[in-house]
Amino acid sequence: MFYFCDKTVKSVRHDPNFYNQQFLRHISLDCVVFGFHDNQLKVLLLRMKYSKEWALPGGFVQNDESLELAATRVLKERTGLDQIFLKQFNVFSDPNRSKTNPAVKDLIDSGEETDSDWFNHRFISVGFYALLDFSKVEPKPDFFSDLCAWQSLSEIRTLMLDHNQILNKALDTLRFQLNYQPIGYNLLPDKFTMPEFQKLYETILGKELDRRNFQRKMLSYNILNKLEERKTGGAHKAPFLYEFNLENYEKALQNGLYGGW
Amino acid sequence: MFYFCDKTVKSVRHDPNFYNQQFLRHISLDCVVFGFHDNQLKVLLLRMKYSKEWALPGGFVQNDESLELAATRVLKERTGLDQIFLKQFNVFSDPNRSKTNPAVKDLIDSGEETDSDWFNHRFISVGFYALLDFSKVEPKPDFFSDLCAWQSLSEIRTLMLDHNQILNKALDTLRFQLNYQPIGYNLLPDKFTMPEFQKLYETILGKELDRRNFQRKMLSYNILNKLEERKTGGAHKAPFLYEFNLENYEKALQNGLYGGW
Repeated sequence: MFYFCDKTVKSVRHDPNFYNQQFLRHISLDCVVFGFHDNQLKVLLLRMKYSKEWALPGGFVQNDESLELAATRVLKERTGLDQIFLKQFNVFSDPNRSKTNPAVKDLIDSGEETDSDWFNHRFISVGFYALLDFSKVEPKPDFFSDLCAWQSLSEIRTLMLDHNQILNKALDTLRFQLNYQPIGYNLLPDKFTMPEFQKLYETILGKELDRRNFQRKMLSYNILNKLEERKTGGAHKAPFLYEFNLENYEKALQNGLYGGW
Repeated sequence: MFYFCDKTVKSVRHDPNFYNQQFLRHISLDCVVFGFHDNQLKVLLLRMKYSKEWALPGGFVQNDESLELAATRVLKERTGLDQIFLKQFNVFSDPNRSKTNPAVKDLIDSGEETDSDWFNHRFISVGFYALLDFSKVEPKPDFFSDLCAWQSLSEIRTLMLDHNQILNKALDTLRFQLNYQPIGYNLLPDKFTMPEFQKLYETILGKELDRRNFQRKMLSYNILNKLEERKTGGAHKAPFLYEFNLENYEKALQNGLYGGW
């Protein structure tokens, strides 16, 4: 599920046939990029230049690209990261989902000569989610946006098109996966405390969990190594640090937290 | 995940623009239809009229259809069934996957005037799997095929295009789901014995399971009602019959077999 990016799109958008020549009509992709920082689940968003609407990072599929390569290319452009953990989670295909694309208005407002009828086509969009190390990302806007930034999940309001629905479906997918797969390797630092780990789960689930139950359940999965060190600098009694046992973590990804048949 | 079909495509394929006018270019769907019969996992396949290659049932997306409606329409045409349990599981987008589509040759061989350049486009295909009651299906070939029939999983050889890969990915998805979600409601009769239930798991997993472990694990999930009746007619001691406890089955689908957070 790690994809490696080895190309970028040449930006010659003044050519009126730029999109029609380079990309597959009717197909787009949208990426829900999650990061964890300051005990908050963050999502990477773009602000459109003209409409000022917020949107998920996305793009189109080049004639010779797979969807996975297209998503990796888009995310490299937005984050600077080369190797990205990403996963298809759903295709969004409501016939009305892209009928009023603000990008069309943006293109007209911007005076660009690019083929704006491209955006009048119906698009089905393949949703990917990515789990990234917040500290390593250097957000960069795309051609249509003037800002690329992290927003805390709790602060996200109305997004462009059906992007709230796409975000919610990604969250539902993550939440359901917490029931049978481990999570955290791409979101937490190498060493972390049990309260930090619990906070990650609580942020994704949107609810508080019982401290003892969480610890008992987590330790029973056998995916953690308890370290000798303790976290320093806190006001309270210093909590122990943990790291993932990568071999067991990988096994739990493959067979589920409760083992296979 | 149950979709209801309320339309079919008018078959006017002699119009040379039939496909270009009705469907979204570059997007197709393929359905892996599973049924269970005689202790065998069966897959519904089509035999192409001219090339005689075997293929998964599939189709295209009409201009005003969602993917789910398109898949339901296609499956209604192939199975006669209206209400179908189906699920998107992956999008197949290798740029070379549809480069040598035998449908093109079939169209030429058949002398059809339909727009054969349609099939020369690159297609990304959305994979759906469906779990159907074998006994209720009335297989019906499509425009390109002369036979629609169930084949036992163990007997399936080379399929058209990347359809083996699509089938295998559907199987992997089912296999992984056995680790955290119940299965069987759409595949088994209303009343079934524990050995029949075990056989379903064994067929999907492609390996034998220990009888006692299977029974112990299954009963611990609390998704079965044990009935007073026993199965009659067998040579051995008549085994008890079970039915699904639908309320708990539904809960386990929602939160996983081991419960949520």
